[in-house]
Amino acid sequence: MPADPDRHRQEPAQLRPEGAGAHPAHAVHLAGRTGALGAGALCYNGAETGASGRTRRRSGTVDGARVRAAIFAAGELYDLERVRALVGRPDLVICADAGLRHAQALGLRVDLVLGDFDSLDGAALEAARAAGMAIVQVPVEKDKTDSHLALEEALRRGAEEILLVGGSGTRLDHTLSNVLLLPECPVPITMTDGKSVARVLRDGQSLAVRREEGAYLSLVPLTPAVTGVAASGVYWPLEGATLRWGESLGISNRVVEPAARVSVGSGCLLVIQAWD
Amino acid sequence: MPADPDRHRQEPAQLRPEGAGAHPAHAVHLAGRTGALGAGALCYNGAETGASGRTRRRSGTVDGARVRAAIFAAGELYDLERVRALVGRPDLVICADAGLRHAQALGLRVDLVLGDFDSLDGAALEAARAAGMAIVQVPVEKDKTDSHLALEEALRRGAEEILLVGGSGTRLDHTLSNVLLLPECPVPITMTDGKSVARVLRDGQSLAVRREEGAYLSLVPLTPAVTGVAASGVYWPLEGATLRWGESLGISNRVVEPAARVSVGSGCLLVIQAWD
Repeated sequence: MPADPDRHRQEPAQLRPEGAGAHPAHAVHLAGRTGALGAGALCYNGAETGASGRTRRRSGTVDGARVRAAIFAAGELYDLERVRALVGRPDLVICADAGLRHAQALGLRVDLVLGDFDSLDGAALEAARAAGMAIVQVPVEKDKTDSHLALEEALRRGAEEILLVGGSGTRLDHTLSNVLLLPECPVPITMTDGKSVARVLRDGQSLAVRREEGAYLSLVPLTPAVTGVAASGVYWPLEGATLRWGESLGISNRVVEPAARVSVGSGCLLVIQAWD
Repeated sequence: MPADPDRHRQEPAQLRPEGAGAHPAHAVHLAGRTGALGAGALCYNGAETGASGRTRRRSGTVDGARVRAAIFAAGELYDLERVRALVGRPDLVICADAGLRHAQALGLRVDLVLGDFDSLDGAALEAARAAGMAIVQVPVEKDKTDSHLALEEALRRGAEEILLVGGSGTRLDHTLSNVLLLPECPVPITMTDGKSVARVLRDGQSLAVRREEGAYLSLVPLTPAVTGVAASGVYWPLEGATLRWGESLGISNRVVEPAARVSVGSGCLLVIQAWD
């Protein structure tokens, strides 16, 4: 967010990954990855498996469980209690700029606040500093959004599962940019604003989605066509369907069994539970 | 929006295109199309050309000018005055369900209100009927969103240029579904909520974007990679750049000349002017 065009553009030195080139997170090819979401609150409500149906459990660094990170962006939260239930007790909390207010509203211990601080007022920043929070100020002029830097920092600190909170809101460009961080993230990532809970499925992946009171289940094709889409346990089942841009077929389905299952042949699908 | 799962799913007969198959709008291949936006208020602030740079002007049915349609969806409007300036005096106004309230707030003559009316209350609907507005009620259970049906109806009525208003808001699935109507629309289409003005560029297309007070200019890759991106007249020019999912490079640029020019080699790019 280049609020001050007179500054020189530079990469934030504090956050530059070790070694040359991009952060390794972005070099990981996701298609065909397998993983199993555990029972923690950050796990959204799904269990993800590869095409084979086998699951894999990685040993994390916290009591052998997966390292779960919550990232708070500066967008909107429409239902704090739903977010509270999803967040649970994360191992790592990173706030991007004014996302700090969301973490504070939830009473969470914050590991790091980072940003160019164009959206967090000085008093709030000083209060955070006085409370002993780690704070990293990055240049206003940079090639990445604060949310993106927070995501990279979470990966660098070993996050094996991420909940991105407050990444959507009144700036459509930021909302879309945050949504499009999901497909390339090398670990399972969920995005929520309290009224929507979104996950990405790519080639050959599948996801279980628990029934939630009052929730719609929408399937949005992020690539121009997503083929081989199957959805069971829903009011309008799909089998071998193709979802395309310019159609709205996948919007506002309903989970009618204890859990639905959604799988994708090829392409990239956003799976969203949403409440009116 | 299947609010009542006991109803049978059916296509809305009133809106079914003549002949078999999908609406011809969706059969049109957009890559390489050429078009020139005129000077009307609906024209956003760009002039679109094909790769050759040549422009084409189609004769419309209203005084030889292009038929300009405004579609009002039921999402949020964050700046009514900016929307008012963009909307101007459209030839055709179609409201999707509670989108009616936006058209009424702007004092526009409404040609058609359509929807399943799950979001417009009965009193408002009766008032619209009493005021002589054409109203089409579609089944709650349908394969398309109300916004999508409104877009199809606008095309059927000869719209040659469309402004989609209120298509974004607190339902992330609807916001994304509406954004993804843009790339397949066979006529120039702009989407706005008053705080963002979004257009799509595809393979070989270019767009001029006027400088607007306080506006950011963001370039969001809708396909996993958009290559050959050029942006001139902006604070951070691009030439032959590739924009990818998982990066946020294109967010929050600034137009620094009277007009910027953005062009795309291959892929699909969302060009968004946004205000904080």
